[in-house]
Amino acid sequence: MPSRTLTGITPSGTLHVGNYLGAMRPAIAAQELGECYYFIADYHSMTTVDDAAVRRQHTRGIALDWLACGLDPAKSVFWKQSDVPEVCELTWLLGSLTPMGLLERAHSFKDKTAKGIAPNFGLFAYPVLMAADILLYDTTVVPVGKDQKQHLEMTRDMAIKFNQTYGETFVVPEPSIAEDVAVIPGLDGQKMSKSYNNTLPIFGEEKVLKKKIMSIVMDSRTREEPKPDGEQLPASQLLKFFAPPETYASIMDQLKAGGFGYGDLKKALFEHYWEFFREARVKRAELEANLDHVDAVLRDGAERARAVAREVMGRARKACGLV
Amino acid sequence: MPSRTLTGITPSGTLHVGNYLGAMRPAIAAQELGECYYFIADYHSMTTVDDAAVRRQHTRGIALDWLACGLDPAKSVFWKQSDVPEVCELTWLLGSLTPMGLLERAHSFKDKTAKGIAPNFGLFAYPVLMAADILLYDTTVVPVGKDQKQHLEMTRDMAIKFNQTYGETFVVPEPSIAEDVAVIPGLDGQKMSKSYNNTLPIFGEEKVLKKKIMSIVMDSRTREEPKPDGEQLPASQLLKFFAPPETYASIMDQLKAGGFGYGDLKKALFEHYWEFFREARVKRAELEANLDHVDAVLRDGAERARAVAREVMGRARKACGLV
Repeated sequence: MPSRTLTGITPSGTLHVGNYLGAMRPAIAAQELGECYYFIADYHSMTTVDDAAVRRQHTRGIALDWLACGLDPAKSVFWKQSDVPEVCELTWLLGSLTPMGLLERAHSFKDKTAKGIAPNFGLFAYPVLMAADILLYDTTVVPVGKDQKQHLEMTRDMAIKFNQTYGETFVVPEPSIAEDVAVIPGLDGQKMSKSYNNTLPIFGEEKVLKKKIMSIVMDSRTREEPKPDGEQLPASQLLKFFAPPETYASIMDQLKAGGFGYGDLKKALFEHYWEFFREARVKRAELEANLDHVDAVLRDGAERARAVAREVMGRARKACGLV
Repeated sequence: MPSRTLTGITPSGTLHVGNYLGAMRPAIAAQELGECYYFIADYHSMTTVDDAAVRRQHTRGIALDWLACGLDPAKSVFWKQSDVPEVCELTWLLGSLTPMGLLERAHSFKDKTAKGIAPNFGLFAYPVLMAADILLYDTTVVPVGKDQKQHLEMTRDMAIKFNQTYGETFVVPEPSIAEDVAVIPGLDGQKMSKSYNNTLPIFGEEKVLKKKIMSIVMDSRTREEPKPDGEQLPASQLLKFFAPPETYASIMDQLKAGGFGYGDLKKALFEHYWEFFREARVKRAELEANLDHVDAVLRDGAERARAVAREVMGRARKACGLV
């Protein structure tokens, strides 16, 4: 069986550069290696977002961001989860064989209840929907971070249980554990994360972005002082991702030598950052001016995804005696 | 809004006369009073039956039984639940707003876990699917026994919560609490119930049925003895449902006077029982000889149900921002 990689994207606000470097860039690069399926997980968003307008806006934002950053609908299948409602039916089929204990042990559920968040059923059922997302498309490979390994193991458990109960039906997917990405520092030097409110957006106004970069927290050394630890500075760590290697090396040399201040460093970071995302920015503006095209891309993706989903659901329904 | 009554039928084995008198007869009689929707709950059966062939056989059995006993597809809508998979999508939408606590308090879940049955997710999620069954069809009235009142209250809670969160979308259904039916005694004098293994089937071979009726447990009084308590005997209580009132009264008189034995009573019960279900039996045999027609009836019902379901799901999807 040829490999098929699936990536789900939860629509949850503005894309930041931590998401881009950690998850989006490797996911998009995978297009060159094999068949890729990407979906915008709007059913999943229902467990956290209960505002219809926000959901619509986030869903569209994801579509624009990913297409702008290189997701190529000619190579890959890209759709909105809820355009293939078969995934909810498969959720029921898998859930009926899933012990409560398996779900009670899910980290995502335990973490939130431990934080005192009153859990709702959607949060509890989340791993079953996620398993359905994966199994519905005969996915062979799921790229997962270390913290999501458990969800893929649960998916494998559910596939195996169904196959044992009703006969071979689902492809049992393999994880592809992502290599550790360098931690992306945020504006305050901590790991960049929406929950720390220290993120850098990819898209947005030049002025706003510049102001954010200029606000990166530094120490109080003067321009003249040599900074032998230049490479450890958050702004330098960010610069390394966006500047050409020779430029980066030259700036590090200047920092170490002294006479190169934090203002200079941040200015360089802003310029290379702005340049790095220029193509994506232009593309995003084009897409935004042509939303009908974006809708058509998602519709076409949904049709292609649904054709696979129908075939797999046909197998599953027959196996368990619904038909 | 005109009234619309919904009845779900779980496919779980052979119909017995306790089911018939307690649930089926009133449900079928309701056809004369307003619009009735009936569905065979094959998704629900997945929480208890994990054999595909058994599920198929039970589903077909339900269709034959109900059509034979008077469900009229020209008057009512009759379909197989899984032919309208939109119900699974609505389950997800409702579940995402449902607190865990609400489901943890469900009697059906608490009872089974109290009995030491290792619960699965399907059993836990059951009330959400049940709510989706009801709300998907703009149901106005749900006939419920006293033990199912809680499920309808949960359905109402979910409908109200969704309407409050996303704007008016669902009809909030009203319960119609069934009047107490006389307890139907089983072969051993206890309440007739599949779990007591004391049931009388409606359909089946004459010889088998006769043998079952002849095995009804009685006391040791002789034929000659007068039985002043004749009406309290289980066989008499059953007879009352199936014999014409004058015949029943005359038999009670003979029992009280003496000279009328238990053999005579059971023979009378068998004859009236056999006669009572004659028309249904003939009809069932006809249907069984024409299963294509039965399938066509269910297909047609599914189309009619699905047209309503699509309209309601369209409303719900729009309200919560999936479209």
